[in-house]
Amino acid sequence: MSQTPNPTACVLIIGDEILSGRTQDLNLKFLAERLGSLGIPVREARVVPDVEAKIVDALNTCRKEYTYVFTTGGIGPTHDDITTPCVAKAFGRKVIRHPDVEKKLRAYYGERTNEARLRMAEVPDGDGVSLIENLISVAPGYRIENVFVLAGVPSVARAMFEAIAPSLQGGPPVYSQSVDGHVREGDIAARLAEIQAEHPAVAVGSYPFMRHDKLGTSIVARGTDKDSIAVVIGKVAETMRKLGAEPVLGPAP
Amino acid sequence: MSQTPNPTACVLIIGDEILSGRTQDLNLKFLAERLGSLGIPVREARVVPDVEAKIVDALNTCRKEYTYVFTTGGIGPTHDDITTPCVAKAFGRKVIRHPDVEKKLRAYYGERTNEARLRMAEVPDGDGVSLIENLISVAPGYRIENVFVLAGVPSVARAMFEAIAPSLQGGPPVYSQSVDGHVREGDIAARLAEIQAEHPAVAVGSYPFMRHDKLGTSIVARGTDKDSIAVVIGKVAETMRKLGAEPVLGPAP
Repeated sequence: MSQTPNPTACVLIIGDEILSGRTQDLNLKFLAERLGSLGIPVREARVVPDVEAKIVDALNTCRKEYTYVFTTGGIGPTHDDITTPCVAKAFGRKVIRHPDVEKKLRAYYGERTNEARLRMAEVPDGDGVSLIENLISVAPGYRIENVFVLAGVPSVARAMFEAIAPSLQGGPPVYSQSVDGHVREGDIAARLAEIQAEHPAVAVGSYPFMRHDKLGTSIVARGTDKDSIAVVIGKVAETMRKLGAEPVLGPAP
Repeated sequence: MSQTPNPTACVLIIGDEILSGRTQDLNLKFLAERLGSLGIPVREARVVPDVEAKIVDALNTCRKEYTYVFTTGGIGPTHDDITTPCVAKAFGRKVIRHPDVEKKLRAYYGERTNEARLRMAEVPDGDGVSLIENLISVAPGYRIENVFVLAGVPSVARAMFEAIAPSLQGGPPVYSQSVDGHVREGDIAARLAEIQAEHPAVAVGSYPFMRHDKLGTSIVARGTDKDSIAVVIGKVAETMRKLGAEPVLGPAP
């Protein structure tokens, strides 16, 4: 709801396996939490198939609109791994084999080195490209301008993200706190809208839940100012009490 | 990879809670599997925040590009539930209170009926709007032209989807079969690319896995022709055997 001065991020999930339902994506939640904690809120995510035109279009739209774009998936050795040629095409560059990565892959794979594996040494040509270390499975990711190309396997995506996290220009950290109560959303909605209006710099979200067969509502306040979050949570808790519910506060930010 | 004559779907996930990492989305995987089984492959998904311009833009782009669009989230009673006004805006229509839904909500909530809850009776005005029954929590979803507006809570989204599934115009069902083996992706990649080229109507995906500390690869063949899938899986299994691994076939479609 609020307009913040923070840099923004977009997550671009590449892969037929997510769109077919074969694989449950786990990278968006991880990246969203970590980027949020760095003050770089994720403002959009897209899932695109292993189709060049779709990947190139999404890349070119999103890299103009957001401070950072993080892609996951499609950088392995098989024919369906087409992220790097797509990234290169989006930036109007050629694909080259990075000599340092080739050396590393040859050392790692020895006699099992082959053309398929050496595809993992490919990166877009030109300036503004830097490798992202992969401590888990050797083949690196890379950054090109404001786009970070990460693996799709969650453990590898996470390791790559942690390798680059210190280099990201974050904004003020985005904090959040929740307060839960056995009130119905419809009973708290009117007062909640007032509280949101009173605190436009805090995003107030409302999420119904069911616990022990009892309906309830979890209210989440999110923003860069801890004091405002505390005030919002206090007002919500007071409203819950007036409605006869005992508010349960989540940890203060 | 393959071009099919099937209708296509796009899933539009609406909600700050997914982009903040607070909530793990579970609706895409469900919708992707169900739509795939109906012969309506999901070709794109987007996650957008609770921001009018973002929702309207995504709706208008996606409803032109895909046969069907399924939205999830943002149709509850609170201030952050803005999906319906956004859908109406995307279609250039007004929001009206649907008399049948209002009656149903008033009967259900009795004295607890209020303006917030009656927001759940709102739908876009005009032709081509039909309600989607909600057997779980009363407030319905709706269809407007090729856009289906579903709840965000997974159990409710699923019930709503099953209510409309029989009305969807599916294509030939999309089948898939997997074959797993303790071979490395890089060792099977070259032959796999050949197999893909030999069977352009089957999408051949390759996904590494780690089981009992041993790396392996799961190959998934996906398409509308069961015989071609069987041939592809046979060729992959043969390749795995040549590489010294015992292929484990998933259930035949």
